Parts: sequence; C-alpha cells; structure tokens
Amino acid sequence: PSSYSITLIPGDGIGPEIISVAKDVLVLVGSLEGIKFEFQEVLMGGAALDATGVPLPDDTLSAAKHSHAVLLGAVGGYKWDKNEKHLKPETGLLQIRKELGVFANLRPATVYSPLVDASTLKREVAEGVDIMLIRELTGGIYFGEPRGFGTNENGEEIGFNTEIYATHEIDRIAHFAFKVAQKRCGKLCSVDKANVLEASMLWRKRFLAIAQEYPDVELSHMYVDNASMQLIRDPKQFDTMVTNNIFGDILSDEASMVTGSIGMLPSASLGASGPGLFEPIHGSAPDIAGQDKANPFATVLSAAMLLRYGLGEEKAAKRIENAVVDTLNRGFRTGDIYSAGTKLVGCKQLGEEILKSV
Amino acid sequence: PSSYSITLIPGDGIGPEIISVAKDVLVLVGSLEGIKFEFQEVLMGGAALDATGVPLPDDTLSAAKHSHAVLLGAVGGYKWDKNEKHLKPETGLLQIRKELGVFANLRPATVYSPLVDASTLKREVAEGVDIMLIRELTGGIYFGEPRGFGTNENGEEIGFNTEIYATHEIDRIAHFAFKVAQKRCGKLCSVDKANVLEASMLWRKRFLAIAQEYPDVELSHMYVDNASMQLIRDPKQFDTMVTNNIFGDILSDEASMVTGSIGMLPSASLGASGPGLFEPIHGSAPDIAGQDKANPFATVLSAAMLLRYGLGEEKAAKRIENAVVDTLNRGFRTGDIYSAGTKLVGCKQLGEEILKSV
Ligand SMILES: CC(C)[C@H](C(=O)O)[C@@H](O)C(=O)O
Ligand SMILES: CC(C)[C@H](C(=O)O)[C@@H](O)C(=O)O
Repeated sequence: PSSYSITLIPGDGIGPEIISVAKDVLVLVGSLEGIKFEFQEVLMGGAALDATGVPLPDDTLSAAKHSHAVLLGAVGGYKWDKNEKHLKPETGLLQIRKELGVFANLRPATVYSPLVDASTLKREVAEGVDIMLIRELTGGIYFGEPRGFGTNENGEEIGFNTEIYATHEIDRIAHFAFKVAQKRCGKLCSVDKANVLEASMLWRKRFLAIAQEYPDVELSHMYVDNASMQLIRDPKQFDTMVTNNIFGDILSDEASMVTGSIGMLPSASLGASGPGLFEPIHGSAPDIAGQDKANPFATVLSAAMLLRYGLGEEKAAKRIENAVVDTLNRGFRTGDIYSAGTKLVGCKQLGEEILKSV
Repeated sequence: PSSYSITLIPGDGIGPEIISVAKDVLVLVGSLEGIKFEFQEVLMGGAALDATGVPLPDDTLSAAKHSHAVLLGAVGGYKWDKNEKHLKPETGLLQIRKELGVFANLRPATVYSPLVDASTLKREVAEGVDIMLIRELTGGIYFGEPRGFGTNENGEEIGFNTEIYATHEIDRIAHFAFKVAQKRCGKLCSVDKANVLEASMLWRKRFLAIAQEYPDVELSHMYVDNASMQLIRDPKQFDTMVTNNIFGDILSDEASMVTGSIGMLPSASLGASGPGLFEPIHGSAPDIAGQDKANPFATVLSAAMLLRYGLGEEKAAKRIENAVVDTLNRGFRTGDIYSAGTKLVGCKQLGEEILKSV
C-alpha cells in the first residue's frame, strides 16, 4: 500500500474545524483505497504569530517541504489586521507559496446543480458553469521588487510595488495552462491588460509563442476589465482561463461567486516538483469560528485535489468527490448553502454525513 | 445666455454615430434652457493614427484644453490592436486623461427599472442598484515609472510596471470621494489590497487620516478580491466606492455588468480645474460600427454628466436624464437592451425618439 506524509496546517478562524473534517475523510478514503497517511499538524498565520512571533515558523516550512503534500485551512483574522506587513498572517501564506515554488494555482469554479439557486445569477446563466481558472501564484506584483515606502522629489510619502514577469515565469505557467486546457475542452483564455501594461504585453507575446506547441488548443486573449464583465454576462463561454497573480486573485473570487457557493470551492497550488499546497478558496471566517457553523466541503474537496494533483491517487480523489455530491443529494447543508427543504447541520455533523457517503 | 465651447471626439468604431446623437440632444436641450454651445470636432485614437500618425495629435489636445468640456465617443479597434504601445489608440486616451489632469473618474452603475431583466443577476439582487464608483484615473500602475522591457540577471526578457501612489494623489481622490459620499448616502467603501501591497497600505492610511475631516461619512475598507465577490453577491450593500486606477478599471466594468446594460452607462472624469472629459463606459464596438446598431444612451447620459459636473448646468442635465427615462418608458430599445414587447430601433431613430422626449 502507498504511504504518504501530509502536512496539515489548520491556521486560524474556522481552519481547525474544517481541517479536522477533511482529515477524517482522508483517513477513511485511505483505508478503503489502501493508502496510508502520516499527518503532521503545524502552525501558520495568526496561530503561529501568537505562539512563535512569526507567521511562518521554520519548523512549519521544513515540515511542509519534507512532506508529500500540504493541506491548509485558512489564515487571518481581525486580531492581526493592523499588524505590520511582515507580521501579518497573510504574509505567512505568501511565504509558503513562494518557498514551495507553487507557481500554478488551480481554482475550479463549478456549479453544483443542487446548489444552483444559491447563485445570485439567474439559473439559466449559472447552471452548468465549469471554469478552471489558473492563477500565476509566485510572481507579479505580489513579490516584485522594488517595493516599499519612500519619499518622492517633492518630499511626499510614496508607496510602491512592481508588477514584473520574466520569460521563464510566463512560459512555465503557459505550458501548465495549455496542458490543463488540453485535458479539458481545448479552449484557453488568457487574461491580461496588454493594451496598457508592459508586463502584460510580454505575457501575451509569450503565450502566443508557446501556443505554437499546442496546435490542439484554441488560445484567446481578453483584457481583464472585459473578463470581469464576461464572467457575469455569460460565464459559460469560459472553459480554462489563465492569468497573472493579482488579476487571478480578483477574477477567481468573482468566478467563485458566480457559482453562488464559495464554501464549496477548493484550490490546488503546484510547482515543478515538490509538495503541492491545497486549500479552500474561502477565508478564515473569524465571525463564525468555533461555532460549528463552518462549511467543510471546500476543504474536503481540496483534499480530493491533493489526492489527484498532489499524489496521483485519482481513484481516491473521485471517491471523495462522489461522496460530496452524494451528501449534497441527501440534502445536508451548512448555513451558507442552506435553502428551504434541505437539512441544516453543523460542520461536525456534515463531516459525519460525508463519511457515510464515502 | 451661457455659452460654452465643447470639444467633440467621435473616435473610432461606433464613436461617430453615438456622438452625433449626443450632439443633437445637447443642441436641443441648450436651445430650451438658453445655453449656447460651440462644438469643435477633433480626432483621437485610431482615427487620429490613420490621419496623422499619432493617437493624440497636438491640435486635439490643444482644442480640448481650451474648451469648457470634452465629450468622447470611444477609441480602439482590431485594426490597431497589434500596434506598438505608443501607437495604440488607447494610448491617446491615457494621454488625454493625464494631460487634462482628470484624476477623478465617476462611474455610476445604475439599474434602470425598465431594463432590470437585462441583468444576468436575479431581479431581486439587481433591482435598485445605484452605485457611484470613483476611480483614480491619472496615477497608479497606468502611469507609474519605471516601466518597460529589459533583461534580468539570467539574461531573460522581463516586462515590468510600477504601481505607485504619492500622498497628494491619494489625498485629492479621497477628498473628492468623501465629498461625493456626503451628497449621497454618506457611506464610502474604499477598495484596496492593503494586506499585500505597500501602495495600498499608504492608500488606506491616507483614507483613514482624511476620514477625520468627514465625520458625517462612514468609511469602510474592502480588499479588491472580496469587492469583486460582493458586487455579485449583494451589490445593494454599496453606495459610493473609491479605488485606484487598475482596480477601478476592473471593478467598474464588473459593476456595470451588474446593471445588465453597459450600453446605458456614462462616465465623467474631472480634475482640480480645467475641462472635464465625458465618455460612455463601453468601447468602440468595431463589430457593429457603421451599421446603425449602436446604443447612444450612454453617450447621451455622458452629455448629461458633462452639463452637471462640467458646466454646472444641473437643470439641463436633469432634462436629458428625464428624456432618457421617458424614451425607455415609451419602449424604444437598441438591440443590446431589446426584450420581447419593446420596440427595436437603430441608433439614429433612437436619437430622434430621445429628442422627442426632451
Ligand atoms: C490572503 C491573501 C494574501 C490571498 C491572496 O491575495 O493571494 C487570498 O486572497 C487568496 O486569494 O488566496
Ligand atoms: C481602453 C483602456 C485603456 C481603458 C482603461 O483601461 O482605462 C478602458 O478600459 C477604460 O476603462 O476606460
């Protein structure tokens, strides 16, 4: 039987509750599929700040690097919102992404038919939406240098960041995206702002060059402002999308809301080699933390992505995804996706129902 | 009687058709309100490139600077899409914004009740949406230096831009936004990415400082990724929003789509002094150019904003806005906002109907 070491990072807010459910699901699926997991739980974000003074302790990073995959809950909370940048929970998240080299962030926006009415979009617009948004995750304005504060020639304070991409950063995300598109419908839409930004012009130029190697993929380009419209106007026009770090941050949240249920959406962050990082798209929801109200589906589905993309265990991944659909079909819902006629349960009980469906 | 000089910039694509309608409306309203206009028509964008080799000829800029207000159709088209940056139609637009110093871009996203079903959002979500989005227009990554292409230490090609804000740039848009919020519901939401970007941290710090001078305005902050979700989840939570140049580009297009009819939405770009620039939010729509299919409402409503914000002619502005509502109520629609039971007309005829309603 295969055996894997998994780093669990519960993080802050609802993180511990949802990670606990996902862990139980992994254990059960593993026992059914002949997969053994060894879990190591470590601190990151606010929890790490409180315990160690930094948002990403060395031990955490080392555990992550030496494991086969990392499953993360969420980080952040009001308590640390006013911290200086290097002492923000979010900084720990950015650091671990960079340190693991997970440049490709897969963010599926899938409408689950039992939940289609949760979308604020009309049923006929939302139904059947199935977008794979790929976000470049370790470059661009998130990490570009120079950055910081300073004084300009008039003695005024300035704040600045650098949006920057080098050819190899664009090329690797492009190859990644073309390959994903190949396995899906063969349609790839690259989103940029090449009518204004040089960084986007290089992005577009490289995508056009690399497209030559993927004659079976139909590449299109869209400006980011238009993309943010088109996602609402007609989300079904999109299959696979790819964009830079900051545009991906904005568009993936927008796309998730098209599905109406951000509590359902997982993500996978992958590098060229080494462990991947898997986490729900939603945040740490400090307002409902510790109240057994959190929706664990997105984390459970992130565990499925971990199995598929992190470990190559497709059968086990499918088993989790089927269990999620079955649990939905049996009518179990947390508050965020509840609607009349379904059964409202807490995070723990939903976890037990998912286990029954596995 | 008051007399004003107006620079008309039809631009490219459908620009000439919609500007022609707006001009007729201005003339009629002027004659009824005792306002005289002197129009000067000049070239910009692709039209200027073809005629003069540059996207913003000196004559155009000089005419604009010496007039009381500038009314613009739209620029851009496939024909010039592959031009180098300094020869793109869009570059002319960015230059005129910068040269006129119009740092404050007002983009209302208003749902017209006869058109509420044009939104892809559910009626109860879209109905009554009335957002004033204020976008900083002459700073940030659109104009930040350094920018360009180069080679990094590995000999690779790089493309880079600088997101940069100085205190005075933030302060003036903040004052502007607080004042707009004061005249509306007294709620201002500032959108940034202060958990990651230093430029946003300074932005937030200055907004917090300036908020002290506006105790009657309730200031809130939202991260841009969350804002892009919230605009779909519950757009009615927003009254006045303010954000930087690039986030404003993305969010204003998204907000416009919430209303379902980008063909209805005008904009005003204002500086500390000098003429303002008024233009529809939509683009030049090269695919329907010259076919008498364009929707002139957004340009006509931009003319109303020109009267209100550019010339202080509130009564004339209201007259135009009322005429638009009346024309809608009488059932006239262009193709983009047509629905069963209404009367489909071309751009020209819609213009005539608006004149009747004036
Ligand atoms: C928490 C924040 C730093 C992060 C980001 O901006 O990448 C989050 O919004 C995300 O999308 O994962
Ligand atoms: C055409 C383009 C340069 C422009 C911008 O990005 O500002 C447009 O999208 C807009 O929003 O007015």
